[in-house]
Amino acid sequence: MKNTFGQSLCVTLFGESHGEAIGVVIDGLTPGIKIDELRIRHFLSLRRPSGKISTKRVEPDNFRIVSGVFDGYSTGTPLTIIIENTSTRSRDYEKTRYLMRPSHADYTAECKYHGFQDYRGGGHFSGRITAALVAAGAIIIDALKNKGIHIATHIKEIGGVSDRGFEDFVSDAEFLNNSEFPVLDSEKMSQMKEVISKVAQEGDSIGGILNTVVYNIPKGVGEPWFDSVESVLSHMMFSIPAVKGIEFGEGFNFKNITGKTANDPLRVQNGNIVTSKNANGGINGGITNGMPIDFSTVIKPTPSIYKEQDTVDISTNTNEKIQIEGRHDPAIIHRAAIVQTSVTAIAICDMLLSRFGTDWLK
Amino acid sequence: MKNTFGQSLCVTLFGESHGEAIGVVIDGLTPGIKIDELRIRHFLSLRRPSGKISTKRVEPDNFRIVSGVFDGYSTGTPLTIIIENTSTRSRDYEKTRYLMRPSHADYTAECKYHGFQDYRGGGHFSGRITAALVAAGAIIIDALKNKGIHIATHIKEIGGVSDRGFEDFVSDAEFLNNSEFPVLDSEKMSQMKEVISKVAQEGDSIGGILNTVVYNIPKGVGEPWFDSVESVLSHMMFSIPAVKGIEFGEGFNFKNITGKTANDPLRVQNGNIVTSKNANGGINGGITNGMPIDFSTVIKPTPSIYKEQDTVDISTNTNEKIQIEGRHDPAIIHRAAIVQTSVTAIAICDMLLSRFGTDWLK
Amino acid sequence: MKNTFGQSLCVTLFGESHGEAIGVVIDGLTPGIKIDELRIRHFLSLRRPSGKISTKRVEPDNFRIVSGVFDGYSTGTPLTIIIENTSTRSRDYEKTRYLMRPSHADYTAECKYHGFQDYRGGGHFSGRITAALVAAGAIIIDALKNKGIHIATHIKEIGGVSDRGFEDFVSDAEFLNNSEFPVLDSEKMSQMKEVISKVAQEGDSIGGILNTVVYNIPKGVGEPWFDSVESVLSHMMFSIPAVKGIEFGEGFNFKNITGKTANDPLRVQNGNIVTSKNANGGINGGITNGMPIDFSTVIKPTPSIYKEQDTVDISTNTNEKIQIEGRHDPAIIHRAAIVQTSVTAIAICDMLLSRFGTDWLK
Amino acid sequence: MKNTFGQSLCVTLFGESHGEAIGVVIDGLTPGIKIDELRIRHFLSLRRPSGKISTKRVEPDNFRIVSGVFDGYSTGTPLTIIIENTSTRSRDYEKTRYLMRPSHADYTAECKYHGFQDYRGGGHFSGRITAALVAAGAIIIDALKNKGIHIATHIKEIGGVSDRGFEDFVSDAEFLNNSEFPVLDSEKMSQMKEVISKVAQEGDSIGGILNTVVYNIPKGVGEPWFDSVESVLSHMMFSIPAVKGIEFGEGFNFKNITGKTANDPLRVQNGNIVTSKNANGGINGGITNGMPIDFSTVIKPTPSIYKEQDTVDISTNTNEKIQIEGRHDPAIIHRAAIVQTSVTAIAICDMLLSRFGTDWLK
Repeated sequence: MKNTFGQSLCVTLFGESHGEAIGVVIDGLTPGIKIDELRIRHFLSLRRPSGKISTKRVEPDNFRIVSGVFDGYSTGTPLTIIIENTSTRSRDYEKTRYLMRPSHADYTAECKYHGFQDYRGGGHFSGRITAALVAAGAIIIDALKNKGIHIATHIKEIGGVSDRGFEDFVSDAEFLNNSEFPVLDSEKMSQMKEVISKVAQEGDSIGGILNTVVYNIPKGVGEPWFDSVESVLSHMMFSIPAVKGIEFGEGFNFKNITGKTANDPLRVQNGNIVTSKNANGGINGGITNGMPIDFSTVIKPTPSIYKEQDTVDISTNTNEKIQIEGRHDPAIIHRAAIVQTSVTAIAICDMLLSRFGTDWLK
Repeated sequence: MKNTFGQSLCVTLFGESHGEAIGVVIDGLTPGIKIDELRIRHFLSLRRPSGKISTKRVEPDNFRIVSGVFDGYSTGTPLTIIIENTSTRSRDYEKTRYLMRPSHADYTAECKYHGFQDYRGGGHFSGRITAALVAAGAIIIDALKNKGIHIATHIKEIGGVSDRGFEDFVSDAEFLNNSEFPVLDSEKMSQMKEVISKVAQEGDSIGGILNTVVYNIPKGVGEPWFDSVESVLSHMMFSIPAVKGIEFGEGFNFKNITGKTANDPLRVQNGNIVTSKNANGGINGGITNGMPIDFSTVIKPTPSIYKEQDTVDISTNTNEKIQIEGRHDPAIIHRAAIVQTSVTAIAICDMLLSRFGTDWLK
Repeated sequence: MKNTFGQSLCVTLFGESHGEAIGVVIDGLTPGIKIDELRIRHFLSLRRPSGKISTKRVEPDNFRIVSGVFDGYSTGTPLTIIIENTSTRSRDYEKTRYLMRPSHADYTAECKYHGFQDYRGGGHFSGRITAALVAAGAIIIDALKNKGIHIATHIKEIGGVSDRGFEDFVSDAEFLNNSEFPVLDSEKMSQMKEVISKVAQEGDSIGGILNTVVYNIPKGVGEPWFDSVESVLSHMMFSIPAVKGIEFGEGFNFKNITGKTANDPLRVQNGNIVTSKNANGGINGGITNGMPIDFSTVIKPTPSIYKEQDTVDISTNTNEKIQIEGRHDPAIIHRAAIVQTSVTAIAICDMLLSRFGTDWLK
Repeated sequence: MKNTFGQSLCVTLFGESHGEAIGVVIDGLTPGIKIDELRIRHFLSLRRPSGKISTKRVEPDNFRIVSGVFDGYSTGTPLTIIIENTSTRSRDYEKTRYLMRPSHADYTAECKYHGFQDYRGGGHFSGRITAALVAAGAIIIDALKNKGIHIATHIKEIGGVSDRGFEDFVSDAEFLNNSEFPVLDSEKMSQMKEVISKVAQEGDSIGGILNTVVYNIPKGVGEPWFDSVESVLSHMMFSIPAVKGIEFGEGFNFKNITGKTANDPLRVQNGNIVTSKNANGGINGGITNGMPIDFSTVIKPTPSIYKEQDTVDISTNTNEKIQIEGRHDPAIIHRAAIVQTSVTAIAICDMLLSRFGTDWLK
């Protein structure tokens, strides 16, 4: 399956950082979904670098929908979005063709593609490709919202500074899906930005924690074993280049508590069965229980840093030093948030259409 | 796909805790793999409860291979292992048919299967089903070992007690794959067992951290986006009932370090390219770099505890108290270790056969 | 995927002719479907050899449902049926271990499995395995019938003798699904049996044409390109060992007619849109139009014949003669009919659940 | 999966006849395959209408490869080809928006997509989309040829006129893959063209039989049950819009012969095991035996004819007459030949890479 994800909603990704175009094919979308190009543009803008804490490469992200939309609505046939690459200063990368950037995919790409990969700017491994995921996600985020399902991501922690948790989920989600730096507490937002600026001044980079919530998901979605909701969501999250860990509900904190406090008691509330807390992140036995799906991922520090690093030259098989030039981010976590919301939406939508049929989204 | 995992090596799981039998179909196994029933029996014994820190339900795990093996070797056609259920004290569960056990799958099963699920002992959601995964894993673990690829799991932490890390990987792996309580440091092992005993005395339960390493995996395995090695492994790990989080390499610790220390410098070592440390857990851009794959999961405390808990009765839709009886474990982490090793082996083998062809394992 | 078929309804097949058991796992079946073992027994009896025109190997086809059924209803979790092999006269085959039976899978199995295949009685390639498909099909045929969708197969032609077409489909289907030799016209049935008897006396074998109809299928099922209804059904039909061709509607007769007579005019009939004839077999552009799905397959003559044949001995790589002994059929077409109905039901059900959601069958 | 086909080589198709563009994503192609745009152009020209026996809509088929190729070679990452639509006289179709063209997909599209489909020129169901399949096929046909595997299709029969069979396969294939009207016997070619011209003059249309051969395929490829070579190839062939039947080897003629003549005797020839004839079309038990894979499909008469036909108006639900205008072909069989060769190449390549690993094609 490789670059295609999903069973009922199949998303296929393509493109290289410095190739002609990147893009995505969304197959299986319910016919009759309103496609609003302004909303796609909006979500793309959240992913785009901006201000001094991001890379100076700014792509306009001009996209074209070349199939699957007719008279403003999804047709139900494959919907293809093409984003042309325009700002591709390839020469930055040619100098370092054989110098593998540490903790990038340069060396593993060499191992897998035997030198035929497009090495410029990370090629097919570039974070640039996530723009196509966001374009696809934009459509699905809004379609799910119309069904009452809200999805949003905030930065939970950067450099020891922690955001507050969700309070009124719907309005918090609305706020986050309009924020270039998605943090709920504005004071913490400033502190986080300062942390990044400081790291940037040192030519270094930093990561952090993203927390995503899916609110109002129907009960009984997911599968007991190999296709548990956790399995499907984690499969998708690890597609985001910098994600190196994921936890649901209490996650790694489960090691610090016992069953007595870890278990979520069930309660009848207005005739509806709920849990009185949500340590399991809305999922038991791989299946949704109707509580919000709640998970966090760790974003590793951007591997591109301005400091000199040890590496190898694969043309000579010798140890060398590398000083990465070009444009790169001291942190990508604020840009990754909308990517995480997007791929969550795609995976959730796939599970819902598999469960309730292909017309369910309408 | 639901209960089937894999592309080149397809594993299908079936059975309920108190049904006639559980089992597994392994399809796509390279023909000519020696099948040693004693080794399957050995690995099953590691998963089986034993001693005072485990449930008193002891199944002999008598299995039959009913297809796919001929004259002691895999045929290449579907290999089916059936494990009959014998020790099924179903009455324990009938009393609590409508009382949902908190943080179990009782309620989500009800939501998904509308009352038709086999509720006895967790039915298809029971940890019992993992015996079938271990039976399958046993074959693959040994087959990979014959190709020089070693996989093992140890308990990294329980209740604040931490094991040492791997030193000589091959001999450590050998030790762990023969341990009923897989901890490398014997003193820490005793301390962990004490922690569990204490929790058990309180009628409570505890979880912890499992760490798995895949040693000597070829370079260039995995896919850049949706089928990254992290995606495929995490998909599989979240099939293990109690897993609620996974991290690769430094994982969640990446939030505490900057790019300068997070990056793994590349070095030439005896003509081979390696990284001088392994913060990325052997994977860059979703693809193996030849360093050991290294990941940890968090196992939540067993949801079955002897303490009284709040819950609902779904036949009356009222709030009730539940006191879980029957046989259950204060901790399952030591039993889950071999399950984690098994499913890792299955997922790794699938990726290898997809990459190098279906005869590669021979 | 290999021995697993389907997306929403996944069927996994296993077993060898002379191994311990054959069987099938049905995953994704809607919970709450009544499982009637007598009906499974009934359909299995239609596949079983009987009378003088079939092989003398008669298996009782005693099956056990070991998972997925609770209190007489499907649970929604994997439903596994095991059929033990009992009548396995393996010695018949040992003598011809290295003598490849012409037009059997002996030689291709050798090429694929490098000598590790279970060669006895065709191993995993044996028509015996279709009993598991029929057991699965029996459940689905009846479940679809309860939704008003009727499926049946008759022998359209053997040795120049042709059956009449369907008239009252529902009663014809009922008749066929109770016939050991499923021919609608009883006179033609006698003639066909005579043809087979004559061929049998000569130690030879014969094939013929099977015609299957799916009646009352909803409109709008299927996909435009790679998962057209024809694609999915043909994929499944070629799983039946002797099928070597398939045609939908007019099929190969389309070469003899022009567009004017080939096209099916659309008409309003009692407010419903229908076609006034059904040359396209109920499918346009890969999608159902509500008319009966109508297709025919050709069954090749059974490759096991008593006549001496030219072949090779793969242990010596020399040309040899082979005289096949053991028990075999002069024709299997009458036994293949219920297999074809079964796999049609499975494929149709998979498409319906993918389209309308996993609970649709209830 | 819908518009994505394949496991190791995944092909995703998109586009509508009168949308902005059509295209294809080829994922899993071995890195390092030479990509020759002139060859793609060449194969596309064979599919394009030409002369008086084809539609007057002539698209230049200008394509762009926007990803997956670097410095003239495949990178191994998704290779995307975009073909812009330019000659789209959409008004021809607006008049008949609600008048369903008989035996087209107009009505089934309405049933599936509820009025949201792009109805112009057949939308996503248009034969135009096959240009994308040919562009993908062109790359694979040549790559397989470099591995010694030759694939070609000829018109076996139109209107009672039959072509000769293959003689020297390699040179015949070379000839056919350069022919706009792929018939081996030039006299028969003229006769077939006359048949088509005559049908065209009557405003009618005609179909015929295509025969495809895959020469020099390795032994031991394919799977015993659900993924037999026949299953996979037929699945793919029924993606070609007009195909309504497929047969392997003797196919439907098997009904006319007995086992004695149907069976293919095995022989040792120059140390290699072959069959002395090829009634089974190179496949036994779903697996290749090394003989040429040989199958034929029936192409139904083009449903667009100039004659008046009965149909319905779905906006009024009334019976109406339709007179199809616009540009259409009296026969598409000569254009479908290269489509059939292309999709055969794709399916064969997928099976080979699954069997021998992803680098096999190099």
